Amino acid sequence: LPDLERAKAEATQGLDLLSYGEAEVSRLEVMQRACARVGLPGRRIGVEPLRFRVYELRLLEQSSPGSRVVSAEGALGPLRLTKDEGEMAHIRQAIAIAEGALAATLPSIRAGMTERELASELTLQLLRAGSDPELPFPPIVAAGPNSALPHAVPGDRPLARGDLLILDWGASYRGYISDLTRTFAVGEADAELGRVHEIVQQANAAGRWAVMPEGTCGGVDQAARAVIAASGYGDYFTHRTGHGIGLEAHEPPYIRGDNGERLLPGMVFTVEPGIYLPGRGGVRIEDNMLVTSEGGESLTSFPRLLKVVG
Amino acid sequence: LPDLERAKAEATQGLDLLSYGEAEVSRLEVMQRACARVGLPGRRIGVEPLRFRVYELRLLEQSSPGSRVVSAEGALGPLRLTKDEGEMAHIRQAIAIAEGALAATLPSIRAGMTERELASELTLQLLRAGSDPELPFPPIVAAGPNSALPHAVPGDRPLARGDLLILDWGASYRGYISDLTRTFAVGEADAELGRVHEIVQQANAAGRWAVMPEGTCGGVDQAARAVIAASGYGDYFTHRTGHGIGLEAHEPPYIRGDNGERLLPGMVFTVEPGIYLPGRGGVRIEDNMLVTSEGGESLTSFPRLLKVVG
Repeated sequence: LPDLERAKAEATQGLDLLSYGEAEVSRLEVMQRACARVGLPGRRIGVEPLRFRVYELRLLEQSSPGSRVVSAEGALGPLRLTKDEGEMAHIRQAIAIAEGALAATLPSIRAGMTERELASELTLQLLRAGSDPELPFPPIVAAGPNSALPHAVPGDRPLARGDLLILDWGASYRGYISDLTRTFAVGEADAELGRVHEIVQQANAAGRWAVMPEGTCGGVDQAARAVIAASGYGDYFTHRTGHGIGLEAHEPPYIRGDNGERLLPGMVFTVEPGIYLPGRGGVRIEDNMLVTSEGGESLTSFPRLLKVVG
Repeated sequence: LPDLERAKAEATQGLDLLSYGEAEVSRLEVMQRACARVGLPGRRIGVEPLRFRVYELRLLEQSSPGSRVVSAEGALGPLRLTKDEGEMAHIRQAIAIAEGALAATLPSIRAGMTERELASELTLQLLRAGSDPELPFPPIVAAGPNSALPHAVPGDRPLARGDLLILDWGASYRGYISDLTRTFAVGEADAELGRVHEIVQQANAAGRWAVMPEGTCGGVDQAARAVIAASGYGDYFTHRTGHGIGLEAHEPPYIRGDNGERLLPGMVFTVEPGIYLPGRGGVRIEDNMLVTSEGGESLTSFPRLLKVVG
C-alpha cells in the first residue's frame, strides 16, 4: 500500500505491510518484494476480475514471473453467496435507512420540481438517515417518459401531473447495501397506467412468494414474469427479475429465467419486476428478499400501493 | 453496452451502438462483433489501465485474436493535461460549489460532534450547493491525532478543544472536480500547532508563487518544501506537494520534486503542503492552481488563516 496509508493500516493487528513511495519504480519494487515474500512467482494467481484493473494486473505480471493470472470468481463467489448474521444485521440497517429516507423525502415532492432536484433531496435524506457517505448508486428519479427507461438518469424535466414517477434508491451501511424501487403517481395516473401498476404489484408478490429453499432462481423469475405475460404486457418487461445484493449492488445470485441454481438459506436478492411503455411511462416495484430455512422473508416493507404525490 | 441502456444511448446522435442481453455468452458475441466491425483483431489496442478491469480485458482478448493490449496513457495523457475554456468553466463551478458548501458548514461545527457527523453535514451542503451526486471523494474530516494522517477516514471520536481540524473536500460539476483543504482550530490551538499552521501557510504561498509558464512541476514542489525544511519540519512533510485535477481527482501533472516536466498554460493542479506531527495533529492547506500565459492563478480563494471554530 502507499506509504501515506501505512499509519492507518498499522491500526489493524496482524497485517504484514509493505508500502511504497510516490515514484512508479518504488511501486514495482515493493510489488516484487511482496510477490516474492508470499511465494507467488510460478503459481496460479486468482484475482477479482470486476475489481482488479489492467494497471494492477500489469504490475502483478511484471512482479511474479512465470505466474498465470486467472479469475478467482469460482473461489470467492460461494463465500459471498449466502450471508451470515453479522452481514444480515448490516443489510437490515441499510434497508431501514433507505426506507426512512424515502419517508422523509415524500412530503417534499411537488409537480414542477425537476427529477434532479428530487434526486438531491433523496440523497440528502439518505445521508441524514445514516447511510455511509458512498451510496451504492446515485438514486434514480425518473418521471413521465423517462420512467420507461429502466436505467434512467435524473434530468431537468419538471414533474408533471399525470406522470408515473419511479424512485430507485438504496443506502449503504458498513459496506453492505440496500436497493429498493417504488413507483408513484404525480396527481392522478390515467386508467391504463394505474392498471399496469396493479399488474406489477401482483408480479412482485408472485416473485416474492416463489422464494423458498426448495425453489430456484429461475423459478422466482418465472413466477413474476408469468403474471405480466398473462396480462398481455410480457414484451414490456425487458429485464431479469432481480440480482443478489451484499457488498455490491449487483452480485450473484442472478434471478433470471434460465438460472436453475437452487435457492439457499442466507441468499439475499432483489425481486423487481417492471413494465415499461416507451414514451408513456414505466412501473417497477423492487423488494429485497432473504431466503430462510422456512421460506422467504421480505426485508423491505415500504407500502407498494400506487400512492399519489405532488 | 447492455440492452437496457440502449434507449438512453440512442438519445446521443452519431453513435454506432451494439448492445447485449443478460447472458454472459451474449456479451462475448456482441464484443466479438464490435471488435470485428472496427477491425481490431491483429492490431495494437490501447486501453486506460486505471479504468479497464481484468473483466473487460479478458473479454477483449477473447474477442480480438492476435491483438496486443497496451496502455494508452501515452496517447490520452497529453489530451487531458491542459484544460480548454469549457473545461475550466466546469472546474471553476466545482470550486464555487465546494467553497460555498464549506461556508454553509462552518456555523454548525461544535466541540463534541464526531468527525463522521461533520463529514455528513459537509456532504449534505456539497449536494445542496449543486455538486453532481457522485462526489470526487468522500470528504476527509480529521481532528486531533487523526489529523496527523494525511489520508484519514472520519471516525466516531468527538471534536475536542485544542484539536487541529483538517477538512479536505471537493465537489463535482458535470464530471469535473475540485479538491481543497483547510485546517481549523477547535477552540484555541497550542503555540506550536499555531506556529506549524503559519509555516504551512507560507509553504502554500511559496508553492503558488512558483506557478508560472517558465517553471516546472518539480520547482513548485521545491518552493513549498524549502519553506518547511527551513523551519525544521522537513521530515514531517511526508507527501508530494500536489497533483493534477480534471475529470479525475488525481491525474497528471504530479507536483513532485523529481518531476522536471515544464508547466504549460492550461494545466490545473493542487498545491497542498502539510506538516504532520504523529499523535498530536497535522496541518494541510490545499489550493487549486491554473497555469496561465502570464503566471499562475489561484482558482480557490477561501481564507487560509487559522480560524477558530466550535
